[in-house]
Amino acid sequence: MKQIDVCLTPDLLHQYELKNKIVVVVDILRATSCMVSGMANGVKEIVPVATLEECKDLQDLGYLAAAERNGSKADGFDMGNSPFEYMEEKVKGKKVAVTTTNGTLAIHKSLAAKEILIGAFLNLKAVSEYLKNKEEDVIVLCAGWKGKFNLEDTLFAGALCHHLRGVFEFACDAPLAAEAMYLIAKNDMMKYMQDSSHAKRLAKLNVVKDIEFCIQESIYDIIPYLSGKSLLGKK
Amino acid sequence: MKQIDVCLTPDLLHQYELKNKIVVVVDILRATSCMVSGMANGVKEIVPVATLEECKDLQDLGYLAAAERNGSKADGFDMGNSPFEYMEEKVKGKKVAVTTTNGTLAIHKSLAAKEILIGAFLNLKAVSEYLKNKEEDVIVLCAGWKGKFNLEDTLFAGALCHHLRGVFEFACDAPLAAEAMYLIAKNDMMKYMQDSSHAKRLAKLNVVKDIEFCIQESIYDIIPYLSGKSLLGKK
Repeated sequence: MKQIDVCLTPDLLHQYELKNKIVVVVDILRATSCMVSGMANGVKEIVPVATLEECKDLQDLGYLAAAERNGSKADGFDMGNSPFEYMEEKVKGKKVAVTTTNGTLAIHKSLAAKEILIGAFLNLKAVSEYLKNKEEDVIVLCAGWKGKFNLEDTLFAGALCHHLRGVFEFACDAPLAAEAMYLIAKNDMMKYMQDSSHAKRLAKLNVVKDIEFCIQESIYDIIPYLSGKSLLGKK
Repeated sequence: MKQIDVCLTPDLLHQYELKNKIVVVVDILRATSCMVSGMANGVKEIVPVATLEECKDLQDLGYLAAAERNGSKADGFDMGNSPFEYMEEKVKGKKVAVTTTNGTLAIHKSLAAKEILIGAFLNLKAVSEYLKNKEEDVIVLCAGWKGKFNLEDTLFAGALCHHLRGVFEFACDAPLAAEAMYLIAKNDMMKYMQDSSHAKRLAKLNVVKDIEFCIQESIYDIIPYLSGKSLLGKK
């Protein structure tokens, strides 16, 4: 049977063999939720970059530049890291360059994989259906917070494992634990999210609305995937 | 308020500041369960070492030598890694040298801490009462399995966090997640343990009896602690 595994933070990625596998990168608050929202609302292409400087360079080439540092929009950029900014009229048909604290790093660390997909609660069903129809083993890579474990990415990993149970074998204890977490949290996701340290940080920045948006399951059917240095969308 | 944090595997320990903190090392299956059982049953001193060679050297000096590699007793040693071997008549009053795959490594990685304690379900209440009466912040270090996250150590971490809720503040999401895991598992611990990948490995080696023993809560009141290179016991 195909296997699914969960890497709880990018700091543990050295333990995983990525070759010939599909990696699903998740950074629920808020990088991958933004990517999915943007693609679902007409963004043509998203280029994840590691530094503010690279992001600025692409801005000079005509990209919309999105940058968040420690939860807030960085100075001189077109967009921050709220999914609602990725749904505005001005983004339609545009290319967006984005740098985030954790999500971009997770994508860059996954380049040895056969395929890199962007996952979020927003496109959960689309991702799980896509994976069911593929031959490859899967690793869900939680972007975490500065290398540390975080709750919301683990809950997504658990949701995906739960949807794939029976079709994929759980490779170790992390999928089991993540699924158990998801099953206890799913009926009151907002409460669990509000308890999480990351949500507490964000709550200080008045982004409860963002969080409520990001925990909606399967409202979009688009899957961003890495092609060269860009994320494109497939359905 | 004092803080408690959980480090899910030794591979993430670089993210934690250990200075002036108490580290509780846990390797439920089976190193720390053995240490607690041994001390509760008359073992005088336990020296955790990293290699089979160091363990042999101490055997030449009169120590009982305990060594497990990949779940089985290593050739030429006096004991393996079953808690029942640590409760035999021959261990009373003796010094034991022990090398294990994960537990010893976790202890050696924690040397920067102010104090290192050995935790297991077997001495859960003793450890939590001890910590309540101390001033220091606490880090629970899960030994994991070859650097990977494992379920049984996380369940212990969650149990300890649950016992310390209200007295300690949870420092990040890992204590929250571990506690939630514990609360769903605690009424049927054996089922959760049997689902875990580590228990599955061990089950092949006929150690279900060991597992049933190791998940008993608070049957001993001794706390092994590191003193120099040795573990001694305190009540």
